[in-house]
Amino acid sequence: MSVLVVGSIALDTVKTPVEEHTDQLGGSASYAALGASFFTPVQLVGVVGDDFPESEFDFWKSHQIDASGVQRAEGKTFRWSGEYAWDLNTRETKSVALNVFENFEPALPANFRETAFVLLANIAPSLQSHVLDQMKRPHFVVADTMDLWIETTRKDLDALLPRIDLLILNDSEARQMTNNTSLIRAGREIRRMGPKYVAVKKGEHGALLFGPDDFFSCGAYPLEDIHDPTGAGDTFAGGVAGYLAGKGDGEVDFRQLRRALIYGSVLASFNVEAFSMDRMRSLTNDEIEERYEMFKLMSQFEVLE
Amino acid sequence: MSVLVVGSIALDTVKTPVEEHTDQLGGSASYAALGASFFTPVQLVGVVGDDFPESEFDFWKSHQIDASGVQRAEGKTFRWSGEYAWDLNTRETKSVALNVFENFEPALPANFRETAFVLLANIAPSLQSHVLDQMKRPHFVVADTMDLWIETTRKDLDALLPRIDLLILNDSEARQMTNNTSLIRAGREIRRMGPKYVAVKKGEHGALLFGPDDFFSCGAYPLEDIHDPTGAGDTFAGGVAGYLAGKGDGEVDFRQLRRALIYGSVLASFNVEAFSMDRMRSLTNDEIEERYEMFKLMSQFEVLE
Repeated sequence: MSVLVVGSIALDTVKTPVEEHTDQLGGSASYAALGASFFTPVQLVGVVGDDFPESEFDFWKSHQIDASGVQRAEGKTFRWSGEYAWDLNTRETKSVALNVFENFEPALPANFRETAFVLLANIAPSLQSHVLDQMKRPHFVVADTMDLWIETTRKDLDALLPRIDLLILNDSEARQMTNNTSLIRAGREIRRMGPKYVAVKKGEHGALLFGPDDFFSCGAYPLEDIHDPTGAGDTFAGGVAGYLAGKGDGEVDFRQLRRALIYGSVLASFNVEAFSMDRMRSLTNDEIEERYEMFKLMSQFEVLE
Repeated sequence: MSVLVVGSIALDTVKTPVEEHTDQLGGSASYAALGASFFTPVQLVGVVGDDFPESEFDFWKSHQIDASGVQRAEGKTFRWSGEYAWDLNTRETKSVALNVFENFEPALPANFRETAFVLLANIAPSLQSHVLDQMKRPHFVVADTMDLWIETTRKDLDALLPRIDLLILNDSEARQMTNNTSLIRAGREIRRMGPKYVAVKKGEHGALLFGPDDFFSCGAYPLEDIHDPTGAGDTFAGGVAGYLAGKGDGEVDFRQLRRALIYGSVLASFNVEAFSMDRMRSLTNDEIEERYEMFKLMSQFEVLE
């Protein structure tokens, strides 16, 4: 089944202690759509300016990403620029120019409105709700969020939560949202705010998944070298939603969600190995499966051959 | 097979935001020995003062802990006192009185010197080496350490490392030891300092295990309520060493080490549920196995029934 991905599309300028790259494809929807596309056809909704490279549309096409929901507006594409500290663990936003993204209101093409799986990549929760308003009873809705929305548009976020099936957020956001330092308590508390499932990302420590009756914990792929952490969270969300949609039978259970989290982690681990989406552009499904097998080997302690 | 446990034996006074308890059984060897005793007979070596309660010797006896290596010296037992911050994540040492522990030199009874498994619980690395000097080619040596020794007696620690099979330390200590923020790099680097295996504990994030060819990552048991974190690390080390020794065939491979880490985590998760060793005193093997099963359920994503 297809997955509808809505979010930001940007041109990023990213500086690490070793490298700097200008106007690379970025934005939550770009990363998420690419992540999902390894498992299933993607319908992408977003906005770009008249300076956006046509070649990226060709790239999307070659990756089973239907970009007919990407509007080309007059003006410049959303620009973001950030710089990472020496250990790549913290980053500073150097500049943000919303440009055409400032007045973005996601409008879904008619043939996108009955899509069964939806990934609301990281954008303002009011826009995420606006997407759901246009949908005809989607089967499974995944939403990503960030500290900014928890801080500035909490009411909008609270209104969105009961409408989604899986909320993805990181550890500091989970603590921020609940004023609770225990991630176990925080995850369970967020579930009570509406989402059936909550995934808490912990960076190098992996991720936790909370369901009505189940709990799952997984580690992160042991990478020694990280080149650019930008988009790791979006890629993770894309991998999760794409895997769930790609499974095919439509039903989502905790067992599939466990695997989806691992596939999300696998994709995110590839994404940070190079700048922007460079590693993902050449990634193959065989490489994904190989790393998934590695995850099995590094996680299992009982059922081993 | 038996496991020899050497370390500190103390009477702790611990204060949390909710409770305070005075002169409770504590010390690295006390926690580690109890942890190990659920899997195998333990030989305990340490020192106590003339104020140490005789009842604890009875307790050890009832838990297959042979305390004939515990010297009773003239003077007071080692006292430690600490207070935890509101979230129980940080603690402050309020007072330390070494007392009889100040001149402690572990002397192994003759019948302890051929024991196959050794756990050097957290004490000065020179004392840990002194224990090994008295042993007849132990089969597998586990050592625990702490920030204090990395900082103040690094040479002694470096001399010990090639003599041990498994080093256990926590994440901040691994970073401190290598000046490397990446735990993956840090763990691999510490292996190159001597120990065949390195286990890095990450508190609520679980643990990592590094071997010559293998890597293992596990989560922590999802506890909502922690009452007293004191001794969690020592109990973990005890559970690991006890499980390995209790397996019986003597050979230790990566597969057993994976399970040993889970059992260590299980025991540590029980230990923090009550003050001092109170939870551990009533713990049963059935409860341990039940929680081990929970670990399986929360960790596995592929081979599920």
